[in-house]
Amino acid sequence: MSNTLRIALAQFDFPVGAVYQNAERIAAMIAEARDVQGADLVLFPELAISGYPPEDLLMRPGFLRDCELALQQVARATQGIVAVVGWPQSAGSVLYNAASVLRDGGVETTYRKRELPNYNVFDERRYFDVDPDGGACVFEVKGVPVGLVICEDLWFAEPLAETRDAGAQLVLVPNASPFERDKHAQRDALLAQRVSETGIALAYLNVVGGQDALVFDGASVLADGDGLVHPAARAFEDHWLLADFDAATRKFTALQWPQDGDEGRDALAWRAVVRGTRDYCLKNGFAKVWLGLSGGIDSALVLAIAVDALGADNVTAVRLPSRYTADLSNDLAAEQCATMGVKMESIAIEAPFKGFMEALAPLFAGRDADTTEENLQSRSRGVIMMALSNKLGGLLLTTGNKSEYAVGYATIYGDMCGGYAPIKDLYKTEVFALARWRNTVGGTPVIPEAVISRPPSAELRENQTDQDSLPPYDVLDAILLRYVDQEQSRDEIVAAGFEAGMVDRMLRLVRINEWKRHQAAPGPKVSRRAFGRERRYPISNKYPG
Amino acid sequence: MSNTLRIALAQFDFPVGAVYQNAERIAAMIAEARDVQGADLVLFPELAISGYPPEDLLMRPGFLRDCELALQQVARATQGIVAVVGWPQSAGSVLYNAASVLRDGGVETTYRKRELPNYNVFDERRYFDVDPDGGACVFEVKGVPVGLVICEDLWFAEPLAETRDAGAQLVLVPNASPFERDKHAQRDALLAQRVSETGIALAYLNVVGGQDALVFDGASVLADGDGLVHPAARAFEDHWLLADFDAATRKFTALQWPQDGDEGRDALAWRAVVRGTRDYCLKNGFAKVWLGLSGGIDSALVLAIAVDALGADNVTAVRLPSRYTADLSNDLAAEQCATMGVKMESIAIEAPFKGFMEALAPLFAGRDADTTEENLQSRSRGVIMMALSNKLGGLLLTTGNKSEYAVGYATIYGDMCGGYAPIKDLYKTEVFALARWRNTVGGTPVIPEAVISRPPSAELRENQTDQDSLPPYDVLDAILLRYVDQEQSRDEIVAAGFEAGMVDRMLRLVRINEWKRHQAAPGPKVSRRAFGRERRYPISNKYPG
Repeated sequence: MSNTLRIALAQFDFPVGAVYQNAERIAAMIAEARDVQGADLVLFPELAISGYPPEDLLMRPGFLRDCELALQQVARATQGIVAVVGWPQSAGSVLYNAASVLRDGGVETTYRKRELPNYNVFDERRYFDVDPDGGACVFEVKGVPVGLVICEDLWFAEPLAETRDAGAQLVLVPNASPFERDKHAQRDALLAQRVSETGIALAYLNVVGGQDALVFDGASVLADGDGLVHPAARAFEDHWLLADFDAATRKFTALQWPQDGDEGRDALAWRAVVRGTRDYCLKNGFAKVWLGLSGGIDSALVLAIAVDALGADNVTAVRLPSRYTADLSNDLAAEQCATMGVKMESIAIEAPFKGFMEALAPLFAGRDADTTEENLQSRSRGVIMMALSNKLGGLLLTTGNKSEYAVGYATIYGDMCGGYAPIKDLYKTEVFALARWRNTVGGTPVIPEAVISRPPSAELRENQTDQDSLPPYDVLDAILLRYVDQEQSRDEIVAAGFEAGMVDRMLRLVRINEWKRHQAAPGPKVSRRAFGRERRYPISNKYPG
Repeated sequence: MSNTLRIALAQFDFPVGAVYQNAERIAAMIAEARDVQGADLVLFPELAISGYPPEDLLMRPGFLRDCELALQQVARATQGIVAVVGWPQSAGSVLYNAASVLRDGGVETTYRKRELPNYNVFDERRYFDVDPDGGACVFEVKGVPVGLVICEDLWFAEPLAETRDAGAQLVLVPNASPFERDKHAQRDALLAQRVSETGIALAYLNVVGGQDALVFDGASVLADGDGLVHPAARAFEDHWLLADFDAATRKFTALQWPQDGDEGRDALAWRAVVRGTRDYCLKNGFAKVWLGLSGGIDSALVLAIAVDALGADNVTAVRLPSRYTADLSNDLAAEQCATMGVKMESIAIEAPFKGFMEALAPLFAGRDADTTEENLQSRSRGVIMMALSNKLGGLLLTTGNKSEYAVGYATIYGDMCGGYAPIKDLYKTEVFALARWRNTVGGTPVIPEAVISRPPSAELRENQTDQDSLPPYDVLDAILLRYVDQEQSRDEIVAAGFEAGMVDRMLRLVRINEWKRHQAAPGPKVSRRAFGRERRYPISNKYPG
């Protein structure tokens, strides 16, 4: 008898709510793993039946019934192979984040997740229970005792230790772990630590794909029983992973394990926002997108993301010039569209802007111009872009960055209009860095150099630049990183050497613009503290620190 | 020695984040309870120091330090009286939802909440821990053993039973329990049950005030040891409550306990939305509001709410007629403003609408009119209203109801513009009912009868009525109540007698409009399943049931 197991890991996207479609695909994949790849064992991601995170779909009794029927349907497809499939298991008044071991057409055993993350983007305690009688799950495949834990379980020592004590030599770890920068190193260190504690080999499978504000990166990985962590699978892409596990040595041999090159952290962030944008559009029925192209860096970067996500033929850029738009802006927008092969339209906003000023003249008589008129320009643009989307189809992308969302340097119902915000979680300095990085790959630079080098301006009045109202972006972003991402207090930020008055002004802007962020479109999480479902602040908030 | 305790309950609003202001007010209230009311014991609501819910402010180390310092400041104010004050207690890497017993200038003991709600609008497991060594908290006041549990603890039998076993005769229950319709009866039944299980008398204090999408209703209540539940304190209003507790009989005598009359559930819903609207505006620095007044029922009701919340002098209504606006609409809007003494402006939207059509003409050439032109009218209105708010100050209220939010019968960046949505959680049929109810109180009807009796119309094209696109509202709302509030499946709704094709169309509308709800303004929760923080659905969602 062989003591080698062939394991297939399905690093694919399982869309949220597509219960029966997911089940059909899983059943077909099981057959493929058995018949084409010769696998003994095939692993699917956490909650593959329902997709992750299903959010309050889990409160629909009909949804839970459908998930159970779908799981049974998958189970019937398991002849001559063992499959491990994640699903939400309802049992009376409680619900488990479960993964079932399917064999010979039935459910052999079911593991229930024990550590339920309820922080950052996670709300698992809202939905799931811990089984007080739950424990380790170990099953045999070709004589090899195989264990099973789910995602967060691995971040605690006990579940794996108990699985080892129950005899497992190899443990499968299905995950739904969203991308954030610099997480891989932390994850790999954890795997090495767990192996060193237990001597158990780990097969770690992560789901892939964009789901609203989250992008799951895959990047699945194997760890041998001696502590060697293999290179991760290529991130943000759907593929089969295949490896042989030798029970005697507790080592894996990867048979099919496409890997990333050493492209660095900008490449990963780029692929995160591209995948997030693509999946949001396609999952919501939009093959085509629109965006307003100003000649500035933000919309230029979003255009490049959109083209990488959906192809140049599916993107239309619109110039929306006003009396304040520099010729250079129009020229740079045209240059980028020509370079990228993107269709460009031009619609002047003068007519609606004048219409608004005419309508408002009686009430505005005798009052000076202020940001109201600037907002009217931005909102004229937003309404035009929405009209194009309404009349001609396609999703409107919005082009704000994290610095803007933080301090409210964006017009709600204006440039904030749109269904998805690809660079929402990138600070302005990161936007510049990604633009420079993108220009280094794939031949011709896609973003004109002058777009990167010119001073940022909203072009809403004569000779305006962003730095009229804001500190230089390197200073602003350093303050925001401390305040937003690191939860530092005002006093800590001042003590770090930033000018107190300026810190107070910027922190106040962050606070008073919470209401705008509550009405903002979702965009892909890249950082460890993304606005939206990860950072949940009250709007009505008297705390000044 | 007397065995009578005089207890003061502080049914007041403690704004979120106002840490030191809350502490100062609490210290002053403690002095008032002692010196003016002669109280032996004064109780403050759950998390009175931080306000509730503080959300991710709890992730700021500086915020937690401030809360601790504020609690110590309050403790120093307790000479000659015992005070019980709720605050977030940080202890190393864990955080407790705590209430401390303060006496003689110090902290005598601290109770840590054991049951942490993490469902519906609650996310307490995101922030708080349960102390594994925590248990009952009993302290003596004038020889009477007094216990303490917090809010959700009371919904489980064990915490109170353990407190009884530890000797308590009277238990204080500080709460932060948001209003929802028909909750009081359930709450009172629970109190009676707990008393019958334990023989313990209960003093139940609930906080009051609006906080973003939540409105805390106060309505604090006493329950004697024999099971008698006293009438609740007047809801949605700030006041001192005062009662004597006789330890021998375990009965309360209310000394100061203003009560509601028997006004019914519409009155409570009305006061919820009025309080929610007032507090949102004032807490965010807006004494004045704007709204667009169409001559239809929704904006008419919001106008009445705004006037009750802020006073007629602080509300400006704006008519925004188009070529499709009926004379009757303009007349009814004017009639209501005259009746209510509200300033009215009129701004025709023709100029900006024509401006948009002119700008878009080249791209729209040869295409039929569709909802795009309707949205352009709505968005012209939204932009005008935002310009008034920007230029002249004041918050824009948005007037959509729950039926509209559900099926997307509202224009994002158009009539959805605004900072607060007072009737967001009221179905259209409830809007009608509340309008009729409001007209029965306070003398002159505030909403013209014809506004209530005319067929609802968006007036975005000739002879349009809502029922061109939607089933009658009684049918629509019945379907939505089942689908949204009760989580029924499509098949269950059809089985209840609704036409299948129509059900499918409406359910699809609910699903495909999730993206709009994600960008919607907050509004006061009234139902048991409010859109927003209570009902959290994925946007990208393939589930059809």
